[in-house]
Amino acid sequence: MLKMDEIQKRLLLEVADLHDVPMGAYNLRANGKSVGRGSSANIEITSKEDGSGIDIRIKPGTKNESVHIPVVMSESGMKETVYNDFYIGEGADVVIVAGCGIDNCGTQDSEHDGVHRFFVGENAKVKYVEKHYGSGDGKGQRILNPVTEVTMEAGSSMEMEMVQIKGVDSTSRTTKANLKADASLIVRERLMTHGTQYAYSEYEVTLDGENASADVVSRGVAKDKSYQKLDLRIVGNAACHGHTECDSIIMDEGRILAVPSLEANNVDAMLVHEAAIGKIAGDQLIKLMTLGLTEKEAEEQIVNGFLK
Amino acid sequence: MLKMDEIQKRLLLEVADLHDVPMGAYNLRANGKSVGRGSSANIEITSKEDGSGIDIRIKPGTKNESVHIPVVMSESGMKETVYNDFYIGEGADVVIVAGCGIDNCGTQDSEHDGVHRFFVGENAKVKYVEKHYGSGDGKGQRILNPVTEVTMEAGSSMEMEMVQIKGVDSTSRTTKANLKADASLIVRERLMTHGTQYAYSEYEVTLDGENASADVVSRGVAKDKSYQKLDLRIVGNAACHGHTECDSIIMDEGRILAVPSLEANNVDAMLVHEAAIGKIAGDQLIKLMTLGLTEKEAEEQIVNGFLK
Repeated sequence: MLKMDEIQKRLLLEVADLHDVPMGAYNLRANGKSVGRGSSANIEITSKEDGSGIDIRIKPGTKNESVHIPVVMSESGMKETVYNDFYIGEGADVVIVAGCGIDNCGTQDSEHDGVHRFFVGENAKVKYVEKHYGSGDGKGQRILNPVTEVTMEAGSSMEMEMVQIKGVDSTSRTTKANLKADASLIVRERLMTHGTQYAYSEYEVTLDGENASADVVSRGVAKDKSYQKLDLRIVGNAACHGHTECDSIIMDEGRILAVPSLEANNVDAMLVHEAAIGKIAGDQLIKLMTLGLTEKEAEEQIVNGFLK
Repeated sequence: MLKMDEIQKRLLLEVADLHDVPMGAYNLRANGKSVGRGSSANIEITSKEDGSGIDIRIKPGTKNESVHIPVVMSESGMKETVYNDFYIGEGADVVIVAGCGIDNCGTQDSEHDGVHRFFVGENAKVKYVEKHYGSGDGKGQRILNPVTEVTMEAGSSMEMEMVQIKGVDSTSRTTKANLKADASLIVRERLMTHGTQYAYSEYEVTLDGENASADVVSRGVAKDKSYQKLDLRIVGNAACHGHTECDSIIMDEGRILAVPSLEANNVDAMLVHEAAIGKIAGDQLIKLMTLGLTEKEAEEQIVNGFLK
């Protein structure tokens, strides 16, 4: 059993779907300290010598294993930057679950900045899930500034699920990826902001290798007076395929700025972008309301479906 | 008959489809001087007092009249900035044809920067055509940096056809529009670059009034080693509709950077964007080649169709 209080356990459930110690390799960080760690025969987790974070080394050919490295913070006024590096061996096929939950009932800001670097070996396959969540009724802000840097060797593939569930007051999210030949990246981002929250999310995906491909889809809902800014950039330097899509719902006095960009530097680069910002269509609301839902319930249903 | 040489007449034909003095109001500028001007009962063209350009005043209710203000330059080494203001009266319905052709056979750069401001009155309707063209085998560059600023009163509408035919070595195009209630703007831009040409085109359309709408479509073809950068920005500050689309073909070593942006500051703003960059599809070429065209001819057909 883990030594965690009820708040920490609730955060863990939100960000990593975990009730207790997960199967496979894991590192649980709570209030700035590791409170549990486990390696497996194929996955080794070690602290960096300077104490700035951890290294996760996954042996070549490792199949159907998972790594969980969730972070929970329940003290007000904490601020930390953690550097975690993932070395995924050739031909491995793994699931990596990160995520951070902050509960802040105090008056000081709490901030966790995770810098994750992924070195994905040839023909390796990674599914990466990162969930962010904030709770607590304190005036102190819940701040999360994740940086994700991905280097993908030939033939590798990665699927990223990047989710900000709710309760995060301020976030600046930076994701960079560099793809070699035949590598493929799929990103599904979901951002929900409410109150006076601010979210900035920036992607820069560079397709350097022949036949590399990227599909980056970001969906956002800005409620109340919240603000979102989205920068999705794809650069094609070879014969490659890139697609980005940015779909946003605004509600109340929410505001969204979407600035996608496509850069084709090679005649065989095929790049496509779509973006749409609007409110929930009136006829969708009416349909659900005729089924007996209130307007508020109908809105909630639609938003949940959109962000799923 | 106009006092123009053969080169100037050829340029005039390219940029304004004119063989001679047009019907209606006109101002023809050649090598920095007005070489012909005509006003009509409803459209008055006058020089600005400081000599920096002309004012075009169109009476309210003027229907089915046109204004031509083409510019031709055939001297190497000329550089001019001209300020032209258009005042379009309430309920008028007019066609305005601008455009600039530069023939440069010399070693010095030739540059024309036209700053056009449009004040479109309530319920007025404007069709605006602007064509840019360069020719001549001199080493001096043909440079065109147009600035277009549009203020649209309630219920007015404007359709802009902005075309860079060919031969323009360097261009920086800025178009800004501000729309009040029920105003509608349609933009069709066509940009062709070749050789080592550089084209930068920036649109900023602000929808301030209820039910304002904008539809901005830019099509570009970058051949040889040319480079295009496209910034299309729509800002929605009211219940409004905005659509931008950016379709580009790259050929040879051409490069294109598309940076559209959507900014929704009102819950009833509906904004949509699409962009695609790619080369001509192989099967399109093959289809035309089976009809007897060479690859070069097939490419030309497709590009011409795309830019029409």
